[in-house]
Amino acid sequence: MRVGYFGPRGTFTEEALRASAPDGVDAVALPSIYATVLAVQDGAVRRGVVPIENALEGSVDATLDALAVETEDVVIVDEVVRPISHCLIALEELELDEIRIVASHPQANAQCARFLRERLPRAVVLAASSTSEAVRMVAEDGEAGRAAIGNRLAAELYGCRVLREGIEDLAGNVTRFVWLARHDDEAAVVPAGGGRRFKTSVVFWGGGDATPGWLVRCLSELASRGVNLTRIESRPRRMGLGHYMFFVDLEGRADDPAVAEALAGLGTHCEGLRTLGTYPAAR
Amino acid sequence: MRVGYFGPRGTFTEEALRASAPDGVDAVALPSIYATVLAVQDGAVRRGVVPIENALEGSVDATLDALAVETEDVVIVDEVVRPISHCLIALEELELDEIRIVASHPQANAQCARFLRERLPRAVVLAASSTSEAVRMVAEDGEAGRAAIGNRLAAELYGCRVLREGIEDLAGNVTRFVWLARHDDEAAVVPAGGGRRFKTSVVFWGGGDATPGWLVRCLSELASRGVNLTRIESRPRRMGLGHYMFFVDLEGRADDPAVAEALAGLGTHCEGLRTLGTYPAAR
Repeated sequence: MRVGYFGPRGTFTEEALRASAPDGVDAVALPSIYATVLAVQDGAVRRGVVPIENALEGSVDATLDALAVETEDVVIVDEVVRPISHCLIALEELELDEIRIVASHPQANAQCARFLRERLPRAVVLAASSTSEAVRMVAEDGEAGRAAIGNRLAAELYGCRVLREGIEDLAGNVTRFVWLARHDDEAAVVPAGGGRRFKTSVVFWGGGDATPGWLVRCLSELASRGVNLTRIESRPRRMGLGHYMFFVDLEGRADDPAVAEALAGLGTHCEGLRTLGTYPAAR
Repeated sequence: MRVGYFGPRGTFTEEALRASAPDGVDAVALPSIYATVLAVQDGAVRRGVVPIENALEGSVDATLDALAVETEDVVIVDEVVRPISHCLIALEELELDEIRIVASHPQANAQCARFLRERLPRAVVLAASSTSEAVRMVAEDGEAGRAAIGNRLAAELYGCRVLREGIEDLAGNVTRFVWLARHDDEAAVVPAGGGRRFKTSVVFWGGGDATPGWLVRCLSELASRGVNLTRIESRPRRMGLGHYMFFVDLEGRADDPAVAEALAGLGTHCEGLRTLGTYPAAR
């Protein structure tokens, strides 16, 4: 089975894929989160793996936007939570004060913001399209004084040195990754039972969202039926300030009676409501 | 009066400052949002101007995190909403297919994601610390095949050419900027009246946030008193997945009786609640 992931080789997403993949997977590195979601939609790959949420930096906006706006055919079929620890990486051994440029994915730069501020105050911080792309560029560029933030897998892959380990600002950093499939794929129907806990992700928007209490009325449909939400995130609807889409993760399956009723109730307040998937909870 | 802003020279923040500043302002470019908030806290500047929300890309996380986590002394005293239109900028006239590298602030790259994907599919997208820093680097670097996304002010400032105008994905793009002051500055007390509408920003967190209906109970304190919220945004509390801070903008002043009661009620559900400022609404 072909599985696309947010590449290139050596990303944290590849690590998450390898840690959670069934046997016989043919892993395909794709250049962006958008490309990964679209490859699942088009059937170029049967599954996709992308990051969706980090414990320090919050939602991965590109993933939320791609799932909500760019496709209606792709759903979440599983989730994986993985520890994230960042390394400072260079082609050769370097003192910190010799580093003039440091590059990484903006989320990684943000997760190490304090380290960068305090230990590399004179370095220019650039953002690359992924952590491993940043490491690859440091390796290829070959210039002195350049470093990247990435993982050990990428450092090994591109023949680089790890200068410092664990440079993230807070310990216990984890990222949640999701497995994606087309909604008409067999993977989209997750069998109940087996004592597993499930989660359901939905996105809703519009319909009186500028009136007092609209969001309370929406969320009351869940709370009044004892449906717990584990996460809520708002993203702009891209139609001026003041209009948002709300991404909510619920405990339970979309076909649990209480959840199904709650979602039906929620739908009456909204212009749009989409279920982004029901899947086994990682924790 | 010294006013710090998210620099360097030529940023959209500088444009917003110049469009909304009273006479006699001494504008000081600071290297980051964090540095701007801290300069206000330390008294190095009397006011600060930073971006807080974009209509396409949502919250500016660095601003929310700095206001909520890094200081308790800085409050919002005014807001300014400005149109944002991006230009593709290079040192010399260039065809689009000659561009190998394009750099900008990650928010600007995201606002132009479709343009980059469709018109510059082979260019590597790098992120700089600000739009004008990206333009400055293109000018200084002098290498062919390099471009930046920024505004006309920056292109003029650094002697560059505008290759394309209005390259953002959607028209009507605006950014909300806020003026900051110390809570004990006279600016923090905004006089009521004059027929002006006011907004109040608060952040709250914790206390049973993992139980069903906690967020509904919190927001009901506002809705039941007819207090409208114009925006809600969640950010991780940086203590593992599942715990969030909620940033809410309300209509009204913190000392309006209904708002004051609602905030007192909200506080009974929370571990922490801070008012980030009451200020005249821009729209």
